[in-house]
Amino acid sequence: MGKFKVELKKVVDDSYDILIGHNLKRTLVEDISNGLLGKIKKFAIITDTNVLDIYAQPIYDLLVEKNYKADIFIVQAGEKSKTRETKSKIEDAMLEKGYRRDCAVIAIGGGVVSDLAGFLAGTYGRGVPFITYATTLLAAADASIGGKTAVDTPLATNLIGLFNQPKKVYIDLEAWKTLPDRQMYSGMAETIKHACMASKELFDFLQKNMEKIYSNDITACEYIANYNCEIKYKVVMKDERESGLREVLNLGHTFGRAIETVSDYRLLHGEAVAIGLVAQAYLAKEKGYMTESDVKKVIALLKKANLPTEIPEYIDREKLIEKLYTDKKVRDGKLRFVLEKGIGDVVCFGENLYATPISEEEIRNIINNYFE
Amino acid sequence: MGKFKVELKKVVDDSYDILIGHNLKRTLVEDISNGLLGKIKKFAIITDTNVLDIYAQPIYDLLVEKNYKADIFIVQAGEKSKTRETKSKIEDAMLEKGYRRDCAVIAIGGGVVSDLAGFLAGTYGRGVPFITYATTLLAAADASIGGKTAVDTPLATNLIGLFNQPKKVYIDLEAWKTLPDRQMYSGMAETIKHACMASKELFDFLQKNMEKIYSNDITACEYIANYNCEIKYKVVMKDERESGLREVLNLGHTFGRAIETVSDYRLLHGEAVAIGLVAQAYLAKEKGYMTESDVKKVIALLKKANLPTEIPEYIDREKLIEKLYTDKKVRDGKLRFVLEKGIGDVVCFGENLYATPISEEEIRNIINNYFE
Ligand SMILES: NC(=O)c1ccc[n+]([C@@H]2O[C@H](COP(=O)([O-])OP(=O)(O)OC[C@H]3O[C@@H](n4cnc5c(N)ncnc54)[C@H](O)[C@@H]3O)[C@@H](O)[C@H]2O)c1
Ligand SMILES: NC(=O)c1ccc[n+]([C@@H]2O[C@H](COP(=O)([O-])OP(=O)(O)OC[C@H]3O[C@@H](n4cnc5c(N)ncnc54)[C@H](O)[C@@H]3O)[C@@H](O)[C@H]2O)c1
Repeated sequence: MGKFKVELKKVVDDSYDILIGHNLKRTLVEDISNGLLGKIKKFAIITDTNVLDIYAQPIYDLLVEKNYKADIFIVQAGEKSKTRETKSKIEDAMLEKGYRRDCAVIAIGGGVVSDLAGFLAGTYGRGVPFITYATTLLAAADASIGGKTAVDTPLATNLIGLFNQPKKVYIDLEAWKTLPDRQMYSGMAETIKHACMASKELFDFLQKNMEKIYSNDITACEYIANYNCEIKYKVVMKDERESGLREVLNLGHTFGRAIETVSDYRLLHGEAVAIGLVAQAYLAKEKGYMTESDVKKVIALLKKANLPTEIPEYIDREKLIEKLYTDKKVRDGKLRFVLEKGIGDVVCFGENLYATPISEEEIRNIINNYFE
Repeated sequence: MGKFKVELKKVVDDSYDILIGHNLKRTLVEDISNGLLGKIKKFAIITDTNVLDIYAQPIYDLLVEKNYKADIFIVQAGEKSKTRETKSKIEDAMLEKGYRRDCAVIAIGGGVVSDLAGFLAGTYGRGVPFITYATTLLAAADASIGGKTAVDTPLATNLIGLFNQPKKVYIDLEAWKTLPDRQMYSGMAETIKHACMASKELFDFLQKNMEKIYSNDITACEYIANYNCEIKYKVVMKDERESGLREVLNLGHTFGRAIETVSDYRLLHGEAVAIGLVAQAYLAKEKGYMTESDVKKVIALLKKANLPTEIPEYIDREKLIEKLYTDKKVRDGKLRFVLEKGIGDVVCFGENLYATPISEEEIRNIINNYFE
């Protein structure tokens, strides 16, 4: 018998910058010229059909102008493109065009594009660098921070993927102007979630400035983009691999994901989260963590953001309960919810312990007696 | 404009043990009981059709005996299984059987299985732990150390994958008994490569003990298994991500890979490497790094190991040259070869500089005047 110890202990620095601003296309290309990605000269731009003309093509043109080699790889817009098959197709197209280990990936679009492209970059040539140019509020608030990348499979969403940190993230606030309203609202749900779980100040700001944000007021948009980063960043920094603290980000999501699935994706993710935020607020009130007036404030803010706060009629409530209770997180017949405490805080039972056990009966009560 | 620095600097410890011994099936399961993988209780065993009955089924039985949940996922034996499609199929089968993030992967087989399973483990649920039970000499000598995992695509071998370190590697020397002779010889080529590049002592040992190894003498097999680990380990430890030093492991491989491809995989990888070792020795002699007698010793050892030392007749030599010179490593019309210096050392031009430029003319000379 022989035994070997392979010693592989080392310091890894995956730190990166997030830049928030108006129209950052030139800045991105300048950063590359200034050595952001070292000596890399070949760029695979990954984008979707909606984002192509408005953001990807202009960045491509700027890169080519500077004599970089670049190609655009386009996926059909929408969640359905976030698959292993799309990933393989892009890989094959990149190989065909001679991309090897000496390239970098630039993801231009929303969360679908950055999840897919970030995952692809992580396995291409066993990992090439990537940067993200985020064009949706949802990507700005959520997908662009934390290093989670993934694709969906027929049996699970976001289960096949990697933790893979970008080299830099660009949050283009100007891109929110071309974003369809419903997508903007959906992204706002995650912003409201951040406010509910971590910042009364942000909550108050949103109450006062929703119209400004929705009419693309520069200062207001910058304010929420910064705040979103700060809140998610603080959580992610402390818990890069989801050991516990990240759990708080699930505020509104346990219920939200269930209703999203039962709606068969008629609800956008943020819309489902909005209803989930209402549900957890009702639960928090039942448990004594929120006052009636706090709950009303949350609902009013979601309404102001043009987000749903009621369970749509087409949802089969029994199916919803069933979906919740077949969830992997059910233990001893109890679901575990993150609950809000007042406005801007969550219920916490000790270090990294955020889960309140909720029985089927309690949920049933909320669904049947609190929602219309 | 706002700017955020996401700070993600941390110490990562990917160290792991390699255990070399005779029949380590029980040891593996005991290690798991003793907490090698923490509290994990669900194991996805990945294996191939040849290895299933002899090694995977017995390990499965031992796990089930200890009340672990386990399932065997079987791929068709052979390089053709190392694809994204096979990976997807296993992922779907695992999802179907309820595997989520709380499982571990056990790869049982040769390099094909460990490359595929190690990659799969790295992206399943954004990464679950895996261990490798290596049943071929090639896996023992090469594939099990270094953390490289990958699959092949129609346009490139081993290009889509990850650096992903196992939690432990088991090298079962008894498994070499059931290994087909040709596979054993093929694995020996990598062992001889290690000797040529790094150890006169190992070289001498192989000269004296080849018959013993091939008749499964315990001490001799243990000796080479240990030596292989030591040599590859030393290189890998210093250069986990292939910045330079790992280059030395390419001894015999530049020529080897080209002839492997041109043979349309009639040559096994190790057989191709054997011919590549001869080619580099001829080049080294031409350049004055090896004596005629050293070259003869290398050839004699390869012959003793039942490995080819001549270019097979069916190989189109012009195609071979063409293949070499379309290689990605060609710079200014010159290929870059790692060359042996005497026996047990390589030519080195400074820290991490191992590449000797070789012109097409020089290769042509070797192919036409040195080989039969
Ligand atoms: N990685 C993470 O941590 C994380 C976090 C949250 C969500 N996500 C993922 O993000 C995805 C949802 O993100 P999303 O809402 O950005 O989805 P998305 O990328 O599909 O974008 C939404 C829609 O808006 C279009 N679009 C994007 N930018 C535009 C612009 N500036 N102008 C006009 N149209 C534009 C897109 O083409 C698409 O049709 C989901 O797949 C989700 O799983 C990931
Ligand atoms: N990751 C790395 O660093 C690395 C290094 C070298 C090679 N590789 C990869 O390893 C692969 C080659 O490895 P390999 O030669 O082990 O290939 P392999 O896994 O295909 O095994 C060779 C053959 O032997 C059979 N077999 C395996 N163990 C057996 C046993 N004990 N008894 C009877 N039959 C057995 C297999 O079914 C297969 O038919 C290639 O895909 C190569 O790319 C990877």
